[in-house]
Amino acid sequence: MKGHPPERSIHVPLVVQNTPRTALEVVDGLAAAGVATVHEAQGRTGLLRSGIRPIFRPARVAGNALTCEVAPGDNWSIHIAVEQARPGDLLVVTPTSPCDDGYVGDLLAGSLRAHGVRGVVIDAGVRDVAALTEMGFPVWSKAISAKGTVKETPGNVQTPIVCAGVYIRPAAAVLEAALKREASEASRRPRLTGGELGLDIYDMRGRLADRGVRYVEFPESP
Amino acid sequence: MKGHPPERSIHVPLVVQNTPRTALEVVDGLAAAGVATVHEAQGRTGLLRSGIRPIFRPARVAGNALTCEVAPGDNWSIHIAVEQARPGDLLVVTPTSPCDDGYVGDLLAGSLRAHGVRGVVIDAGVRDVAALTEMGFPVWSKAISAKGTVKETPGNVQTPIVCAGVYIRPAAAVLEAALKREASEASRRPRLTGGELGLDIYDMRGRLADRGVRYVEFPESP
Amino acid sequence: MKGHPPERSIHVPLVVQNTPRTALEVVDGLAAAGVATVHEAQGRTGLLRSGIRPIFRPARVAGNALTCEVAPGDNWSIHIAVEQARPGDLLVVTPTSPCDDGYVGDLLAGSLRAHGVRGVVIDAGVRDVAALTEMGFPVWSKAISAKGTVKETPGNVQTPIVCAGVYIRPAAAVLEAALKREASEASRRPRLTGGELGLDIYDMRGRLADRGVRYVEFPESP
Amino acid sequence: MKGHPPERSIHVPLVVQNTPRTALEVVDGLAAAGVATVHEAQGRTGLLRSGIRPIFRPARVAGNALTCEVAPGDNWSIHIAVEQARPGDLLVVTPTSPCDDGYVGDLLAGSLRAHGVRGVVIDAGVRDVAALTEMGFPVWSKAISAKGTVKETPGNVQTPIVCAGVYIRPAAAVLEAALKREASEASRRPRLTGGELGLDIYDMRGRLADRGVRYVEFPESP
Amino acid sequence: MKGHPPERSIHVPLVVQNTPRTALEVVDGLAAAGVATVHEAQGRTGLLRSGIRPIFRPARVAGNALTCEVAPGDNWSIHIAVEQARPGDLLVVTPTSPCDDGYVGDLLAGSLRAHGVRGVVIDAGVRDVAALTEMGFPVWSKAISAKGTVKETPGNVQTPIVCAGVYIRPAAAVLEAALKREASEASRRPRLTGGELGLDIYDMRGRLADRGVRYVEFPESP
Amino acid sequence: MKGHPPERSIHVPLVVQNTPRTALEVVDGLAAAGVATVHEAQGRTGLLRSGIRPIFRPARVAGNALTCEVAPGDNWSIHIAVEQARPGDLLVVTPTSPCDDGYVGDLLAGSLRAHGVRGVVIDAGVRDVAALTEMGFPVWSKAISAKGTVKETPGNVQTPIVCAGVYIRPAAAVLEAALKREASEASRRPRLTGGELGLDIYDMRGRLADRGVRYVEFPESP
Repeated sequence: MKGHPPERSIHVPLVVQNTPRTALEVVDGLAAAGVATVHEAQGRTGLLRSGIRPIFRPARVAGNALTCEVAPGDNWSIHIAVEQARPGDLLVVTPTSPCDDGYVGDLLAGSLRAHGVRGVVIDAGVRDVAALTEMGFPVWSKAISAKGTVKETPGNVQTPIVCAGVYIRPAAAVLEAALKREASEASRRPRLTGGELGLDIYDMRGRLADRGVRYVEFPESP
Repeated sequence: MKGHPPERSIHVPLVVQNTPRTALEVVDGLAAAGVATVHEAQGRTGLLRSGIRPIFRPARVAGNALTCEVAPGDNWSIHIAVEQARPGDLLVVTPTSPCDDGYVGDLLAGSLRAHGVRGVVIDAGVRDVAALTEMGFPVWSKAISAKGTVKETPGNVQTPIVCAGVYIRPAAAVLEAALKREASEASRRPRLTGGELGLDIYDMRGRLADRGVRYVEFPESP
Repeated sequence: MKGHPPERSIHVPLVVQNTPRTALEVVDGLAAAGVATVHEAQGRTGLLRSGIRPIFRPARVAGNALTCEVAPGDNWSIHIAVEQARPGDLLVVTPTSPCDDGYVGDLLAGSLRAHGVRGVVIDAGVRDVAALTEMGFPVWSKAISAKGTVKETPGNVQTPIVCAGVYIRPAAAVLEAALKREASEASRRPRLTGGELGLDIYDMRGRLADRGVRYVEFPESP
Repeated sequence: MKGHPPERSIHVPLVVQNTPRTALEVVDGLAAAGVATVHEAQGRTGLLRSGIRPIFRPARVAGNALTCEVAPGDNWSIHIAVEQARPGDLLVVTPTSPCDDGYVGDLLAGSLRAHGVRGVVIDAGVRDVAALTEMGFPVWSKAISAKGTVKETPGNVQTPIVCAGVYIRPAAAVLEAALKREASEASRRPRLTGGELGLDIYDMRGRLADRGVRYVEFPESP
Repeated sequence: MKGHPPERSIHVPLVVQNTPRTALEVVDGLAAAGVATVHEAQGRTGLLRSGIRPIFRPARVAGNALTCEVAPGDNWSIHIAVEQARPGDLLVVTPTSPCDDGYVGDLLAGSLRAHGVRGVVIDAGVRDVAALTEMGFPVWSKAISAKGTVKETPGNVQTPIVCAGVYIRPAAAVLEAALKREASEASRRPRLTGGELGLDIYDMRGRLADRGVRYVEFPESP
Repeated sequence: MKGHPPERSIHVPLVVQNTPRTALEVVDGLAAAGVATVHEAQGRTGLLRSGIRPIFRPARVAGNALTCEVAPGDNWSIHIAVEQARPGDLLVVTPTSPCDDGYVGDLLAGSLRAHGVRGVVIDAGVRDVAALTEMGFPVWSKAISAKGTVKETPGNVQTPIVCAGVYIRPAAAVLEAALKREASEASRRPRLTGGELGLDIYDMRGRLADRGVRYVEFPESP
């Protein structure tokens, strides 16, 4: 098929419209519970790779995932995603190949915020971090880079994606478990800061003996 | 709940039994088509991160994914997976946290082969690579490490996982597209090795002009 | 040649004196324009690899490049460079092999500032960052390390170098293009924060159709 | 030996009790001297790999090393270490395989502080950094990760370890050398900030000639 | 300028035609001398970053650099470069942002060879390495990846580039120095394999004393 | 102290002579046992970081450690170490700062072999790997780089060092444990390759129940 590289004919980008959202009171409840708690509550899953860092600290956000695949060095589909945004969304961006370019800058962040997007999680780079920090617009990214992007290759919007090692899909039912766990953590805090040992609180002494741990006096050589 | 750290009560490992497999003639057809072709045929998706390397080359395999999550430094669930294996399976292992330890050695490889498993893809480490190479047992891994693992924390077996950036699930329909694409590649090969330019075969000259590419003679300074 | 390892006789370090500088009003104009803008204005070139990070934020500086090659773990040529410095210079340091050692500390920073140097860009490590932050002396580096350096192997000073993937040479003509681009960005800002879509502002809808992007309603499965 | 994987029978974890500490006045003297100075004073040894970063800056601490080996993804032995802590200790943690999980969070930090521990150095991950920052509890780590850990595999406590490339053992005698060096640095500071060249202060001109460094005038081409 | 993202209007790709080449007898002489020797002979410069690895070993090639900048995930300009190739050229490719995609596969390699290109050096990924190895077509790359590329964004061809940390430009005069150094290495080989010490051959004993190296007998504690 | 940078006066390199060696029959017994076995036998310690790779495979060696610290980019102390070598030694080299330069090439390897050294382990780079492979001289390194080194800064020889995360010191008593473990592995091999499950051989079924692992039938959704 002369004139059309065969690559192009096969992968037609897809934009899924009107995906249902989780109610914002549920989403906000998760934000209040905190990431470590939510992670434990949903069976220790859903945590992004640790290389994804906030551009400023402290930062905490929860939202309905508005997903977006971008070609390396190309942010066209983020512009497509803006049109699909709903208030309370959190833009989640993954490149089809690893790329550190700065996909989102202050202009695009302003546009996202104007459409109700609360923040961005991107397994790639972001730019203009001084301006984004001033705006108080939270972004978690793999890199910071002033390198801009082109708009030549659109990608899927609002399809399931893998971002930073996690398969991203909507979620609501974990809130109850998260709250239960948070209460349990709170009850242990005064005991630990009062000097009580975790070995006792978690009753680990019997299991230490099971493991054959040997206590010796200095200077017995190891 | 004294005596039981709360982490344990929440994430109960799951072993899904008797997952249906794709017929091996389909799987073998994909193997013959080659990874680049299959990747293009399924819409440029499904390719593992490039850091996953074979322990010997050349190596080519296709199989039904037998999935397995392992705790860092712990290969217990691989032993669980062996029992779930069917001939033609390909063991796909992902750690719940990044880990380079050697999860699979020659003993475990012998056990896997005895149960019909064709090879291993693991986003972690492997050991005894000299022995595995001699056995002709193909493994793609992120690392090679003689560091062995314990058997204390089991994980999920045969549930959907993310391995090396890809969400792993069974797949069959891409074979026809793969074969079509392969035929198209084959037809271009003699033209390219005969010296015909890709610029002409793919009819890219008009698009070059569209992009404003400027041809100059040396020594016009760039 | 007994007594002299042959390596030494071949690479004689070079110190180029009195290199002409760009007028500081031009340099300062570039600083005001910002790095993303300057990068675009000079044809998307000249941007350092994204791993080069500032030791404090926000930090913005522009200067005439005072270049310097250092041996791994050896900062002798930085001392040579101090003598070549002119007010408004920006010290740009590259190691001849990758090295994370702390080449510049607060003493050397004080010396650089005393000679008019505005800051340091180094594709290696820096130390004493608490003191440098207090001084307000901006440094962009690849690493932070308390590991000091020796003074045994001098390197070239004020010769062209590659630092963080960029060939470093003086530049002035990009200012006009940078200002033009900045004005264009400014004019789009209120439209984007007002909620107008980038798809419309950049007139990308026709090109979306050209690319065959398909809009579907949820829950059409992708 | 049915029922007992052979790995377990061999490596019995060891907890060494009542290890003597260095007097806190010596330890505090080292803290005052600063890390670069202490490093030089003890013969340029003992510096951790530069990838170990503080969770907040500025942060400075010195203490008697309370050492601890942890299995990947498992913080049991940190709980064991808490019981061995003495006021003025600095917890130093190394995983038996590289791991970025969050071994220490705000609860465990509260427990450590209640037992007199001044901070943590860990060649792995830490979590709850916002809370730790608020507490002013200093931690140097290789990673930040909300990923929690299990308590299945105990490790050695208070044995010599390698952490971030350094063999960790108690140390006292370097204080005098550290103070001497610090005085020498202080005496050079006003000369350098006054514009005197390091080339002169360190008398490096003769050695420059020895090395054959060639000074040329611009525009002699290099 | 509606309809044209401003990025595009500024960086017009450039193709420099008919760049003069170095005579192939000179180039071949350098190939014979070997990379370490040539590197020393040209003043310890011009060596690519060590992460650039051959896809098969042993492999040795020299050629006139045919340079090429590619956008991330886009190999269009390699097709442009094929048309500019001359027998004896070595294609040197650098991405404008780091990218591990497989820019060159067996089809494109066949096309390059048909135009006289001897091999490829690419600071990015390559695919079909089994086929390239069979062809005996040498490639040095940063990554191996089956991930294909698009043809949307052309880049500069035959302009100076930075590839793997080195500024690439034609070179001829180093041959004589390379041969001289190689002869010197050859003369030392029998002395070293005969057991003579480098300390004596390079006359380093006096310099050892200068450095204050202290020889002690075991078991004097260090 | 004019004329002597203060760094130099403090760290005087040390060369420890006539360190006792372990008998070669013990060393050779360990080589026969294999690295994974020896690692387990000595309590799962002593394994180098997995990034240390052999330049050819298969390669297996054991020897008395001849230790050597090198400055970054400087191989002087390797020449010092050659003089201290005894037949059966294995040269173990660690840089004082991370460095990928090629510290050892074919000339130095010839010299090492002439003095009885069996191979090299280096947490840095090596060069001339094609020649070293032809010689059959085994080297495990972190990098391969043609970048040569200077001879300006000597370091310690035959003192305890940390190489690739391990504290290196002589060792002999682990042989008996290693042999016992190897016999145990050998006895399990036919059972595993015969299809018997590790779950049964290691009697892990009761512990699976303890952990609450749940077996379900497809298609119960996880």
